[in-house]
Amino acid sequence: MARSPRCAAGRRLQLPLLCLFLQGATTILFAVFVRYDQETDAALWHWGNHSNADNEFYFRYPSFQDVHAMVFVGFGFLMAFLQRYGFSSLGFTFLLASFALQWSTLVQGFFHSFHSGCIHVGVERAAGVSGPISPSHPNSPSMINADFCAGAVLISFGAILGKTGPAQLLLMALLEVVLFGINEFVLLSLLGVKDAGGSMTIHMFGAYFGLAVSRVLYRPQLEKSKHRQGSVYHSDLFAMIGTIFLWIFWPSFNSAPTMLGDGQHRTALNTYYSLTASTLSTFALSALVGGDGRLDMVHVQNAALAGGVVVGTSAEMMLTPFGALVAGFLAGTVSTLGYKFFTPVLESKFKVQDTCGVHNLHGMPGVLGALLGVLVAGLATHEAYGDGLESVFPLMAEGKRSATSQAMYQFFGMFVTLMFASVGGSLGGFLLRLSFLGSPPDSQCYEDQIYWKVPGEHEDEAQGALRVEEPDTQA
Amino acid sequence: MARSPRCAAGRRLQLPLLCLFLQGATTILFAVFVRYDQETDAALWHWGNHSNADNEFYFRYPSFQDVHAMVFVGFGFLMAFLQRYGFSSLGFTFLLASFALQWSTLVQGFFHSFHSGCIHVGVERAAGVSGPISPSHPNSPSMINADFCAGAVLISFGAILGKTGPAQLLLMALLEVVLFGINEFVLLSLLGVKDAGGSMTIHMFGAYFGLAVSRVLYRPQLEKSKHRQGSVYHSDLFAMIGTIFLWIFWPSFNSAPTMLGDGQHRTALNTYYSLTASTLSTFALSALVGGDGRLDMVHVQNAALAGGVVVGTSAEMMLTPFGALVAGFLAGTVSTLGYKFFTPVLESKFKVQDTCGVHNLHGMPGVLGALLGVLVAGLATHEAYGDGLESVFPLMAEGKRSATSQAMYQFFGMFVTLMFASVGGSLGGFLLRLSFLGSPPDSQCYEDQIYWKVPGEHEDEAQGALRVEEPDTQA
Amino acid sequence: MARSPRCAAGRRLQLPLLCLFLQGATTILFAVFVRYDQETDAALWHWGNHSNADNEFYFRYPSFQDVHAMVFVGFGFLMAFLQRYGFSSLGFTFLLASFALQWSTLVQGFFHSFHSGCIHVGVERAAGVSGPISPSHPNSPSMINADFCAGAVLISFGAILGKTGPAQLLLMALLEVVLFGINEFVLLSLLGVKDAGGSMTIHMFGAYFGLAVSRVLYRPQLEKSKHRQGSVYHSDLFAMIGTIFLWIFWPSFNSAPTMLGDGQHRTALNTYYSLTASTLSTFALSALVGGDGRLDMVHVQNAALAGGVVVGTSAEMMLTPFGALVAGFLAGTVSTLGYKFFTPVLESKFKVQDTCGVHNLHGMPGVLGALLGVLVAGLATHEAYGDGLESVFPLMAEGKRSATSQAMYQFFGMFVTLMFASVGGSLGGFLLRLSFLGSPPDSQCYEDQIYWKVPGEHEDEAQGALRVEEPDTQA
Repeated sequence: MARSPRCAAGRRLQLPLLCLFLQGATTILFAVFVRYDQETDAALWHWGNHSNADNEFYFRYPSFQDVHAMVFVGFGFLMAFLQRYGFSSLGFTFLLASFALQWSTLVQGFFHSFHSGCIHVGVERAAGVSGPISPSHPNSPSMINADFCAGAVLISFGAILGKTGPAQLLLMALLEVVLFGINEFVLLSLLGVKDAGGSMTIHMFGAYFGLAVSRVLYRPQLEKSKHRQGSVYHSDLFAMIGTIFLWIFWPSFNSAPTMLGDGQHRTALNTYYSLTASTLSTFALSALVGGDGRLDMVHVQNAALAGGVVVGTSAEMMLTPFGALVAGFLAGTVSTLGYKFFTPVLESKFKVQDTCGVHNLHGMPGVLGALLGVLVAGLATHEAYGDGLESVFPLMAEGKRSATSQAMYQFFGMFVTLMFASVGGSLGGFLLRLSFLGSPPDSQCYEDQIYWKVPGEHEDEAQGALRVEEPDTQA
Repeated sequence: MARSPRCAAGRRLQLPLLCLFLQGATTILFAVFVRYDQETDAALWHWGNHSNADNEFYFRYPSFQDVHAMVFVGFGFLMAFLQRYGFSSLGFTFLLASFALQWSTLVQGFFHSFHSGCIHVGVERAAGVSGPISPSHPNSPSMINADFCAGAVLISFGAILGKTGPAQLLLMALLEVVLFGINEFVLLSLLGVKDAGGSMTIHMFGAYFGLAVSRVLYRPQLEKSKHRQGSVYHSDLFAMIGTIFLWIFWPSFNSAPTMLGDGQHRTALNTYYSLTASTLSTFALSALVGGDGRLDMVHVQNAALAGGVVVGTSAEMMLTPFGALVAGFLAGTVSTLGYKFFTPVLESKFKVQDTCGVHNLHGMPGVLGALLGVLVAGLATHEAYGDGLESVFPLMAEGKRSATSQAMYQFFGMFVTLMFASVGGSLGGFLLRLSFLGSPPDSQCYEDQIYWKVPGEHEDEAQGALRVEEPDTQA
Repeated sequence: MARSPRCAAGRRLQLPLLCLFLQGATTILFAVFVRYDQETDAALWHWGNHSNADNEFYFRYPSFQDVHAMVFVGFGFLMAFLQRYGFSSLGFTFLLASFALQWSTLVQGFFHSFHSGCIHVGVERAAGVSGPISPSHPNSPSMINADFCAGAVLISFGAILGKTGPAQLLLMALLEVVLFGINEFVLLSLLGVKDAGGSMTIHMFGAYFGLAVSRVLYRPQLEKSKHRQGSVYHSDLFAMIGTIFLWIFWPSFNSAPTMLGDGQHRTALNTYYSLTASTLSTFALSALVGGDGRLDMVHVQNAALAGGVVVGTSAEMMLTPFGALVAGFLAGTVSTLGYKFFTPVLESKFKVQDTCGVHNLHGMPGVLGALLGVLVAGLATHEAYGDGLESVFPLMAEGKRSATSQAMYQFFGMFVTLMFASVGGSLGGFLLRLSFLGSPPDSQCYEDQIYWKVPGEHEDEAQGALRVEEPDTQA
């Protein structure tokens, strides 16, 4: 595989130059546009003569930290299940999310600052504590929202895990963050759709974007790397770190951006119960479809989390604890069945290779969650919500919408998301096929050694010979 | 070992059907009984015209999240020290705790709702912020209390780890959660005993319940699985994830359900110092009894945590930082000596096989903690507590009890707990011996492959032949 | 290597006796001096008739928990990257930090209680919520400050990791905690230097103290243990647990002791963005200097964190989000280049063997952070801070200092820190060379088996023969 030295040098410089360029660009944009908001600026905060105890920080930061742990610990380790791709799973998660946090601060800010010309950032938009300090746009940029966007990017990463290089992934993030921002703006601001925990804006969007990318990057010869596609005993234990941190902090994820007070409290509670039910149904279904009654770690690592996805839209609403259990139960069931029966079909019929099964964990449960949101919004009454209706469905409280019309907007939002995700993902796929972006050859997928210096032991562990080839230029 | 196909099919269906039945039953009971409480219900919260900043969520949720992490990350990984039982340790922790959270919400709710007919849930009973919003029962159901109950179930699981199947464990949880609820109700509500961090209600109860189960399930031939009973280098590192998360969050565990304000603050502080002392005494004793001066990971993983258990009852009280150090020091000492000298005796003389040494970590330190509670309660004076006496010892503040009589009630509560735990655990043991519940044969204990599809590498790692036999029907 | 039995017995008893002596001493000192503060004492808190919601606990405890996780999970696992030193990395972190928490409570308290005769402890000094409840000294002892001091000790541990025994380490902590307390007192209280996140007091101090110790303990024959100095595949994944928990919680670390309100909020935000930039620059530089374009896990595990160190002094100030990105970018760059080019020089030219590269992660970024603090303090204006100037630069607000003189004090503080760290560390090094303190022989460095019972598998994994020799008496 002879290659000119110039070409190899170009390959080596691709990732560094891209990182430096992107960091340089966001730094300049930050200098021009990004400012502290009223809660983080020394002069603005003290000018307002607020009590320090009223700072949004004390109401949002614990939730933010849980979300932050989910993005980096949760997604990172969950994807470390592959036997020879742990460095990449953790490292690229780290790289992608770090870039996405900066870039989505800018993108979400641009939608918010059409008029003011500046992007004001804080942990979350201020609302609800001591009256409308800043009656801000629903998707104003914030640390929590930036982490949400990073989560969507990592979901897409899960679909193409092991089949793309870091430069390709950064370009995907560059595009996806923009589309995430547009889609969220359309849903939350233009359509008035409710989606606190992001069944649509995060899970559906991230999953179908990633699946569309994977479709375009379809590799008919991927079985050449089949022997590296599974887990080993220890890598499954590392993946469980990810699973459990996602599971325990999901109540914080769904409740992080809701209105303060009962809204945040109720959202956490609903998510908590939904997850317990999806765990039980996952164990039941996993043993049932296992043939010999044995459980499958893939199901436990993933499908048990579907209960968090499925209440992403509705956990904020008066779902009832009973409703949360039913929703979680269904999500765990659908997700486990998806891993068993649908993932093979997805590859063989639809030519979509979904490494982590994001269709089962984020795609289908996300759709279910959107539909559940339609249902629960459609059932909303003034009796059930009382004066709290204004927090959950402000347009209904103001008499601008009926429950039915809110439900229809929710339903429409689901299709808008599907459209943005699939068109955007396809676009992303073609972008990633640009020939100068080296993607790993079919025989070197799911392999750390292409991108990382791997300590010696690894070779000893490897069964069979490993030849580290130059990354291929053709996807 | 020929078996009829029907019987094998029955075995395979046992776990799925049990999961589905239990989830179905709790779902129906949730539909009938469980409602949002005043802090989570949109209409009730807004009807009260509270400030959103006063919602109990902001005072309890960070503590809850730490407790939640302890239950799932802490217990799960701590039990993953066994070389070939990591999937089961993490997976069954996940399954058992998920079920226990639902079921204990119901059980604890039934004791609370004799009169009202409904179970109102939230993160914790509301008390102390802005006056008695809901002057509720001390053991009203809540997310924190449900997690506490799950903790007790997992302690019992530790005693029988590796020797029981998931269906057996779910049945044990079904029984134990009920008895946990009764015991807690008797102690906290009927006897007026103080036990915020659960030295008695959680640690002693969980430990002696599990030890009684283990006694009934005694296996004289267990040495057939001896080679799998230890750890390997990596599994000890995974276990340290559990240890450290338990250690750092224990201050939150003990303080999660106390009165707000100084009570919660003081409880966290006492637990913090107690744990530092138990860590030093564990290292001292471990090196001392090691023969060659070398440290033992089993001691560090477990005994270092005894400082959290021992102040479970008294950390809420005016224990003083000095008292916390002394208590922690003693607990670490007793626990390490227990692992070295008492665990072998427990098996040889008392026929109790205690896989994780829960007697050393939760049993003896729990008893010590109960006695410390007796002492500190007996020393309580109006001078030391001032107006804070009403928060810690309301019956003393109201003049209904002297310090001495409170101490006697504490002492009595310890025996009640011992009684409920040992009788209940024995009952549980006989339940688990029902012949249709397949438990693993003596030669297949501490082995994941009976219950899990284990990736290929595992077989290569195994030293000696591994034959996966059908689970035995006789315990 | 014949040795008298008496000598061997003395060796075996060294660690236990030292642990027991230190624990005994701190226990007695706690009995005499340490008391609950106004926020944790039942009588004092209720006497003040405060609202429970105003207790400092609710404003500081979530940050404290994140710091606590960083110290034990973060540092512990980060240092577990060595292939055969995971037990020691985690275990000695546990032991050292537990002792440091107690001892620094006392040391920091002594500086605070010259007059009152008592040391009052709580989660953090009370300030800012409902007026000056306790107008306390800036470095009054607290759980957060004790954890900060433990962090500095663990940074020093990183420099000598694998080359010292636990008894040596405890003695080092005994000395270092005292000097940390003095240095912090001089900087924060006498010089009025600002250093919330401890670029100087924690990172520079810990790094240069440890490097000075390592210099004195220089081992010319260390290459005898070369084969154990690297990582293996799984140990690198364990180390990533440490990296990621440090990374996600660093915003809490820097903001934990700042003034409440905008100060804490702004500090967290600045740190968050700085870390994203240091991550991107680390990936860029790591691939750039890798020769073949491949990334190095050592860089990702460490240099990506430099963004947290570099804003330790200035994150509290009006650094602007743009400034945070620039600072983080530079820190990641300097740190990665340090690992590649400076660490070898440090050993060959300066005879400093820096196991974890603390000079690259804490030393140089700490100096950069101190200089950044000089710059940002020097640029402070009344316009930029408004009434918030009193929180960040009280002496400037009171007109006692100009921005320039504050900058000069900051600059001077850096040199004071360097002086205390290097002189103190050299002193510490000579203390550790005392011949009765057995340090591991050159051929047994980075090896768990000297100090720990290691389960059987380890021997099988070891390539080449491992002879466990008696620890050497000569360092």
